[in-house]
Amino acid sequence: MGEHDIIRRYFAVPELMLARPEIELGIGDDAAVLRIPEGKRLVTATDTLAEGTHFPTGAEAESIASRALAVNLSDLAAMAAEPLCFTLALTRPAAEADWLAGFSRGLAGLAGEFRCALVGGDLCRGPLQVTIQIHGLCEPGRELRRSGARPGQAVFVTGYVGDGAFGLAGLGIATPGVSLDAPPADLPADCRAHFHDAFYRPRPRIAFARAAAALIASAIDVSDGLLGDAGHLAAAGGVGIRIDPECLPYSPAALCCAGEASRLHAALRGGDDYELCFTAEPENAGGLMAIAAGMNLPLTQIGEVVAGEGFQVKGMEVGGGLSFDHFQNHR
Amino acid sequence: MGEHDIIRRYFAVPELMLARPEIELGIGDDAAVLRIPEGKRLVTATDTLAEGTHFPTGAEAESIASRALAVNLSDLAAMAAEPLCFTLALTRPAAEADWLAGFSRGLAGLAGEFRCALVGGDLCRGPLQVTIQIHGLCEPGRELRRSGARPGQAVFVTGYVGDGAFGLAGLGIATPGVSLDAPPADLPADCRAHFHDAFYRPRPRIAFARAAAALIASAIDVSDGLLGDAGHLAAAGGVGIRIDPECLPYSPAALCCAGEASRLHAALRGGDDYELCFTAEPENAGGLMAIAAGMNLPLTQIGEVVAGEGFQVKGMEVGGGLSFDHFQNHR
Repeated sequence: MGEHDIIRRYFAVPELMLARPEIELGIGDDAAVLRIPEGKRLVTATDTLAEGTHFPTGAEAESIASRALAVNLSDLAAMAAEPLCFTLALTRPAAEADWLAGFSRGLAGLAGEFRCALVGGDLCRGPLQVTIQIHGLCEPGRELRRSGARPGQAVFVTGYVGDGAFGLAGLGIATPGVSLDAPPADLPADCRAHFHDAFYRPRPRIAFARAAAALIASAIDVSDGLLGDAGHLAAAGGVGIRIDPECLPYSPAALCCAGEASRLHAALRGGDDYELCFTAEPENAGGLMAIAAGMNLPLTQIGEVVAGEGFQVKGMEVGGGLSFDHFQNHR
Repeated sequence: MGEHDIIRRYFAVPELMLARPEIELGIGDDAAVLRIPEGKRLVTATDTLAEGTHFPTGAEAESIASRALAVNLSDLAAMAAEPLCFTLALTRPAAEADWLAGFSRGLAGLAGEFRCALVGGDLCRGPLQVTIQIHGLCEPGRELRRSGARPGQAVFVTGYVGDGAFGLAGLGIATPGVSLDAPPADLPADCRAHFHDAFYRPRPRIAFARAAAALIASAIDVSDGLLGDAGHLAAAGGVGIRIDPECLPYSPAALCCAGEASRLHAALRGGDDYELCFTAEPENAGGLMAIAAGMNLPLTQIGEVVAGEGFQVKGMEVGGGLSFDHFQNHR
């Protein structure tokens, strides 16, 4: 199969070329043409997954695709933008039909769910890497930024923290300080499945972010661990963020299969959770909790914004540079 | 250096973070926020360069960066869009300061020339690949598409054809059927320099495309060789395109250093020229020539659109599937 056959069979398909009025020209020309509605802003981000760095060699194509689109959608969630469309740059050593079919299926699942259309891309030969560029829309001045944290605000996180790192551990890949109580094969099957899905199928918190944006002061998605990402909120706001480790929300699977120290390492330095970490005025806590409850989404206050600087953990000394850095850490 | 140090030193720099009123939020958050002016459309494309596929292992960082941005700008030229901004996904086995400084310099040259700002990206560890996603603007309904070719139109190409393949040959990398009259080291220095620049510094034909768009019926940029790319114009228009090989424009360096058969192979199947190939009504030829002449840009009528289908070369039989396919051909 040549590049154009592959595009026709696996990418220029109805499940991915979703019709949206904003898309005037999609796959098939030198570029896509988009009409951004009046009174909207375009929000755009890009994230790469490289084999051996972001997922283990030999991972399933469907899982890789799903994770690649999910982490990009998570960037839109962190801005409180609604998904519009994406482009895909896929580099692959060979063109196996089964692999491509699985990859296409993995993309289509999330693309359909979020009405996020594939509008173009590039396909070429080389070591396996997936780069998605995502486009979303938001109202002028209503995007969530990292820079709004102010002393006195509360710090929240959606969902559970640490499961991304446990997902990697379940795949046999260690994060320093993170371990499970038993070899992956000996864990309860539902815990193993939970960790696997946490890693490969993170849930972009778009709906929550869109509904709650007006109540939020600053936001980021947790891709590098709370230490690093809440640290970015602190730095961007010129404030300190103090987390209470007793408050961190762990999944039933994490509580079942990992000790306290391991859970804390996974949450602070594990990365790959793709939950939202955000700050908000304390009087908005009730509204935020009600929105999350309406979505069956766990939402937890994990700390507060303080004067000063940096990321602090109540009762602990935390050194700098401890977050997961995809450039320095090779998986 | 960690990811954030690298971004601060080499990417979040004034030479790349160009101020433009459309950019409300650039590098430094989860995503960029763009204000698309009323009455404009957003035009977006993505292209990857992978080491070993698109450029030889060990190529200079500045050249890689320059080429990566140029080929993306060329996609905007093929749509007659004006550049706005780009994101960068860079995957690299290590973080050497010299390499990054060269790469940043290579980007900054073209970014400044085309006022195309870097607004975000992703940086991680893995085999060297560069994916740029480019954003441009055009007036509604005025973008050039591939699909407008109709029988009776003339077929044009800007600049010279074949020099991309000769550039590869000059780097010691063969394209089937393409050879130089002497080993690269024995070629005249100015020819060698010309081929090198043709490969690493293709000139995106933005200015010409913007000025000439109203006179053009269909357009594509030549990235895979005339056979493949003019073939796309033929297929998209449901017509045939017949090229006269006697009319193909070769650079003085190509005429100096390669035989006729080799030049024809380079033009038809070499790829990497990043010139514009387009069709236009014959009565527009004078206007097109005048615009090109005003820019000192060679412009040549190389054939015509005919009824029927496919790419035809006057006096030759041309088989299918002969264009350069970056997926099937490993460099």
